[in-house]
Amino acid sequence: MDKVYEFQKKNKDRFLNELLEILKIPSISADSNYSKEIIKCANAISDNCVLSGLDNVEICSTNGNPIVYGEKIIAKDLPTVLVYGHYDVQPPDPLNLWENDPFQPIIRKTNIHPEGAIFARGSADDKGQVFMHLKALESLIKTSSLPCNVKLLIEGEEEIGSPNLGDFIKNNKEKFSCDVILVSDTHLFSLKVPTITTGLRGLCYLEVEIQGADRDLHSGLYGGAVPNPIYILSKMIASLIDSEGKITIPGFYDQVDELSNKDREELNKIPFDEEIFKNSIGIKGLDGEKGYNTLERTSIRPTLDINGIWGGYTGEGAKTIIPSKAYAKISMRLVPNQDPDKISQLFIQHLKKIAPPNVTVNVTSFQGGKAYVLPSEHIGYKAAKKAMEKGFNLETLPYRTGGSIPIISLMEEVLKVKSVLLGFGLDTDAIHSPNEHYGIFNFYKGIEVIPYFYKYYQQMKKDKSHG
Amino acid sequence: MDKVYEFQKKNKDRFLNELLEILKIPSISADSNYSKEIIKCANAISDNCVLSGLDNVEICSTNGNPIVYGEKIIAKDLPTVLVYGHYDVQPPDPLNLWENDPFQPIIRKTNIHPEGAIFARGSADDKGQVFMHLKALESLIKTSSLPCNVKLLIEGEEEIGSPNLGDFIKNNKEKFSCDVILVSDTHLFSLKVPTITTGLRGLCYLEVEIQGADRDLHSGLYGGAVPNPIYILSKMIASLIDSEGKITIPGFYDQVDELSNKDREELNKIPFDEEIFKNSIGIKGLDGEKGYNTLERTSIRPTLDINGIWGGYTGEGAKTIIPSKAYAKISMRLVPNQDPDKISQLFIQHLKKIAPPNVTVNVTSFQGGKAYVLPSEHIGYKAAKKAMEKGFNLETLPYRTGGSIPIISLMEEVLKVKSVLLGFGLDTDAIHSPNEHYGIFNFYKGIEVIPYFYKYYQQMKKDKSHG
Repeated sequence: MDKVYEFQKKNKDRFLNELLEILKIPSISADSNYSKEIIKCANAISDNCVLSGLDNVEICSTNGNPIVYGEKIIAKDLPTVLVYGHYDVQPPDPLNLWENDPFQPIIRKTNIHPEGAIFARGSADDKGQVFMHLKALESLIKTSSLPCNVKLLIEGEEEIGSPNLGDFIKNNKEKFSCDVILVSDTHLFSLKVPTITTGLRGLCYLEVEIQGADRDLHSGLYGGAVPNPIYILSKMIASLIDSEGKITIPGFYDQVDELSNKDREELNKIPFDEEIFKNSIGIKGLDGEKGYNTLERTSIRPTLDINGIWGGYTGEGAKTIIPSKAYAKISMRLVPNQDPDKISQLFIQHLKKIAPPNVTVNVTSFQGGKAYVLPSEHIGYKAAKKAMEKGFNLETLPYRTGGSIPIISLMEEVLKVKSVLLGFGLDTDAIHSPNEHYGIFNFYKGIEVIPYFYKYYQQMKKDKSHG
Repeated sequence: MDKVYEFQKKNKDRFLNELLEILKIPSISADSNYSKEIIKCANAISDNCVLSGLDNVEICSTNGNPIVYGEKIIAKDLPTVLVYGHYDVQPPDPLNLWENDPFQPIIRKTNIHPEGAIFARGSADDKGQVFMHLKALESLIKTSSLPCNVKLLIEGEEEIGSPNLGDFIKNNKEKFSCDVILVSDTHLFSLKVPTITTGLRGLCYLEVEIQGADRDLHSGLYGGAVPNPIYILSKMIASLIDSEGKITIPGFYDQVDELSNKDREELNKIPFDEEIFKNSIGIKGLDGEKGYNTLERTSIRPTLDINGIWGGYTGEGAKTIIPSKAYAKISMRLVPNQDPDKISQLFIQHLKKIAPPNVTVNVTSFQGGKAYVLPSEHIGYKAAKKAMEKGFNLETLPYRTGGSIPIISLMEEVLKVKSVLLGFGLDTDAIHSPNEHYGIFNFYKGIEVIPYFYKYYQQMKKDKSHG
């Protein structure tokens, strides 16, 4: 592997500069105004695949945003790793809270990142992490050191729930056939406690519309006598969580897979510090489901979160209206065994049931996804653990995290393989928030660790089949 | 008075065209981006005062938007009527619900307005009604028929609670000294049941900000463990009204002046039809304080209304965040004897008390105003009733309405005179809403009735002082 690391050392600055160029493209999938930027970004990713030495690079069209594909097939008898990532990003708003233009990356040192961090939307989630793979592969291919076959699949709709990827994979099973999927779209517990994400929560995401009158009304002339959609929506939202932090939707917990005491103990080996957690986000106090600690609440328990709310007059000054409509975006994080479609149905039924008869309720359901678990006996997990321990020279722990990558469980269903979540971000990276950033140390560490994964995975696979 | 009505008949079309020009100016006081339009509108009103034959017309500067003043002093021994109105308008949003540009007036026939109605922001509230006065005065002055002294005060901040008018009047008491104030900024019960507004509700208007973490958070990584400001705000809002429709702020009802049985009976003479009311706004059911009917809930009872709410992601698609902050605009309509400053204080205290300790609550209070009542023995009321009955040839009833014109009670305090609320709008005019309009019949009827008010008021005043 010496050649590989020599190549990486020589090309260090170029790797970084190429990433900065990609970060300048506002490939926001949630806003259709950015569809041209999506195409531009897919092209840029494709160019970088070619640069990395991948073969059969193509931009595959879907009913939504295109998927970038590339591969390097060495030999039929070698294991095949499918690398998954996404080139789309979250909307950057609220823009006024960014210290730089979110699409004009700058490098700034921080306490956590004395070597500097790249501040830009998508730097950690997920362009920076996708780029680690492209550069790890480049260093393996250009030095003729790649020990496995590799396929690369970078999509452009992860931040909106991957609505088209499932069908695309189903229709191209052979193209994506592999032994394991490798994904870097998660974070480490910390630089001192490297982790591999072995659990992800699932997701349901819905938009609720409450309509009262057929138009906005003067609150002086109608106030006190007509249903106010904002008030009714607030009341409905308030009722969705009880005083013990439990979600009140009937049937919501029915399918929840409770963790065994052993697994719960193992999870709690993570040196999670509530004070540090609180201080890192400037919050006065924590809150959540009774009977669980913060680590558990954010990883192994399902939750209901209000992601947005709007209605009525929201401009400067005072406008005395009762709006015709009020809206909320509500999502639920799910744990293993909860079915997102079923939960969406329960949510919709419950909302219609609790709404007073003088308003109309409309609920739109966005694409969801199931939760995911990777067992610690899986070779993919073992290879990743060994690679991390080699790269960090520190014991690496399994880690369950609260985020969702809905496509992971879908890929498992269709391709019948597990995914290894080898992420290099930190929870302080402010992904989905203003001032998202990604440590330069993390970026290079990822490029260093990934080749070991290929090496150990190929070895372990071989040992297993021979053993 | 024949000369007056001949003049009106001849100049009918010009009156209307002059109004249409004024309606083209987006004089939105709630949005500081429109401050140039405010100045433009003040100038246009001033030009129209000169055209009407008023003397000493001036644009008086204040700490906010200017006030237009004009007068016609005939003789010291005649009574003086102060006409109050406003040239500022509500913001037109949501713009997409307008059938025409709100500042490009069009005339369209409707079921209620077979003679046509003017569709434009400000057509009914209050430019159209201010214009009736200008044109009534023009027809009286140009035919040398004005029976009283007249002063005209048209302000530009009514829609934001008249923050500067109070001081301006206090500093210019002599200028505004008068026997009665005449205001057209209210509506009739219907064209078949003409009314004079004898009661207005007061107003408190506040903006609430709830802050949790110091930045927006990824709902997957933090959901379930940190306070969500939208959820907390919703819960706080939900708790402000109980299951009987009572406002839960301690002390809120303490100063409420309950109506006597006699006054309540008189109010209920109005042939109010709940079905018509419901159908007019396309609503499935009514709601409000237990023990009161809809007419009472919207006129003699205090209310709490959520006028706007916002927080988190409100764009297209799905963004999985827990926002740092959530906001609401909340107003309360007050009845006689409730003090808006006191009620604002109670509201702020209560909100801070019910907020959980892990969030920060900030409340901003906008300008409010007290409720108002005009007794039926007042000469101003009697003259107005006689003028209405002459103009409509129908019995005219006293009417209490739920809107607020905070400056009315302030003017009473400073100038020690009562206001007569002689409005010609209809509750279907959609003021403060998309597609605001004002009937052409109503516009001309106002111009016809106002001269009778001057005539009867002067006569009754004279009879009283001689009697």
